Amino acid sequence: MSKPASRLYIEDALQAGAAIAASEGHAHYLLHVMRASAGTVVKLFNGRDGEWEATVAIPAKKRVQFDVTRQTRAQVPMPDLWLAFAPVKRIEFMAEKASELGVAVLQPVFTRHTDITRVNVERLRANATEAAEQCERLTVPVVHEPVSFDKLIADWPTDRTLYVLDETGGGIPIAKALTAPHPAGFLTGPEGGFAQSELDALRQLPFVTAVGVGPRILRAETAALAALACWQALVGDWTQRA
Amino acid sequence: MSKPASRLYIEDALQAGAAIAASEGHAHYLLHVMRASAGTVVKLFNGRDGEWEATVAIPAKKRVQFDVTRQTRAQVPMPDLWLAFAPVKRIEFMAEKASELGVAVLQPVFTRHTDITRVNVERLRANATEAAEQCERLTVPVVHEPVSFDKLIADWPTDRTLYVLDETGGGIPIAKALTAPHPAGFLTGPEGGFAQSELDALRQLPFVTAVGVGPRILRAETAALAALACWQALVGDWTQRA
Repeated sequence: MSKPASRLYIEDALQAGAAIAASEGHAHYLLHVMRASAGTVVKLFNGRDGEWEATVAIPAKKRVQFDVTRQTRAQVPMPDLWLAFAPVKRIEFMAEKASELGVAVLQPVFTRHTDITRVNVERLRANATEAAEQCERLTVPVVHEPVSFDKLIADWPTDRTLYVLDETGGGIPIAKALTAPHPAGFLTGPEGGFAQSELDALRQLPFVTAVGVGPRILRAETAALAALACWQALVGDWTQRA
Repeated sequence: MSKPASRLYIEDALQAGAAIAASEGHAHYLLHVMRASAGTVVKLFNGRDGEWEATVAIPAKKRVQFDVTRQTRAQVPMPDLWLAFAPVKRIEFMAEKASELGVAVLQPVFTRHTDITRVNVERLRANATEAAEQCERLTVPVVHEPVSFDKLIADWPTDRTLYVLDETGGGIPIAKALTAPHPAGFLTGPEGGFAQSELDALRQLPFVTAVGVGPRILRAETAALAALACWQALVGDWTQRA
């Protein structure tokens, strides 16, 4: 297999003829990891203008510029799927996989039994962006700063279903719960599970549906990824041929 | 949260009153990782006799014995789901997650574009077993020695549907393909994808169904786990309340 063209997320506007200065990180990656040189073709996307081909130019030592040539894909809407999750040990893996599985928003949540007290949001953004670049997404997930459990449910939009991964066995089987492609989000707990008070609070909210993912006790990251895959398969963008 | 009881997979027969010598590995784990002592209660399963409670005894220095007391769960049948996969860099992760997601059989397959040439099967068995212990399974997946692609399809049971994760976009959307809980297996390719000759060979087999998992290019391990989750949710043991 020949090496595929590098695909990079940038923030600049993309249009034919644009000349865009590469960030230091991208310049380093292209020159020293991908061994790119003047004339190397890359793909760029910014979450708004679709995907574009650009040619690498090196106007001065250590400076890299993208000369944007032509659009290769138009921007298309992404499924409107959020993932709220208590930080777990494998949080970077979770961000990467959720990005591949097409989430729009990643929201870390501190619950009562969450052991992890600090989240490196910049690191998560890098994980999610790298996964987006590799999986051919035209957007990158928005990674929010962590919030408390109380703030999450207080601020949750009431017209967005919050599917809670209920490890206590009380939830509706997930395939039965996922019936329509309306705005949705999943919430997964920490390794120690939700506190009883949290489960009680969730059950009283009209926008919450508790869902179950079978008889085995899944790790938090497994449950999250399984739920995202089921949503995409049943009501998301896996329902059509690629 | 109090520390949950250790849950261990052993090969010995389990019945009330049995006294079972722990393996060196289990003895080390119990004494030095879990800080168990004489009287500590553990759970044991062997894939045949359900789950049993046992009390740790230490009849001599460095020797650990399980005194089996009572059955806590009867053996129940597991879904009959196989995963055949080209080895990828994150192969141990794949074994762990597939175990959580309830596969019965893990079959490494060397395809034309598989970069990895050796598989540590013992290591995969350990990953799958540890995940089974943690996720409350009553069985551990069988991990077979790797086979060639040609041998896989020559030996595949013709009454078992082989769902091929088709990254070329030619497959049926996965939720449309998974309609009945008959014996099934998934096949995922290596990072470089299947060779055209492999795809051609697969398409001619009556037991093969090519399935698609949406417009993004998933890493091999992501595609495998997504597919297993969809199968469990749609036709496996996630269709009932836990």
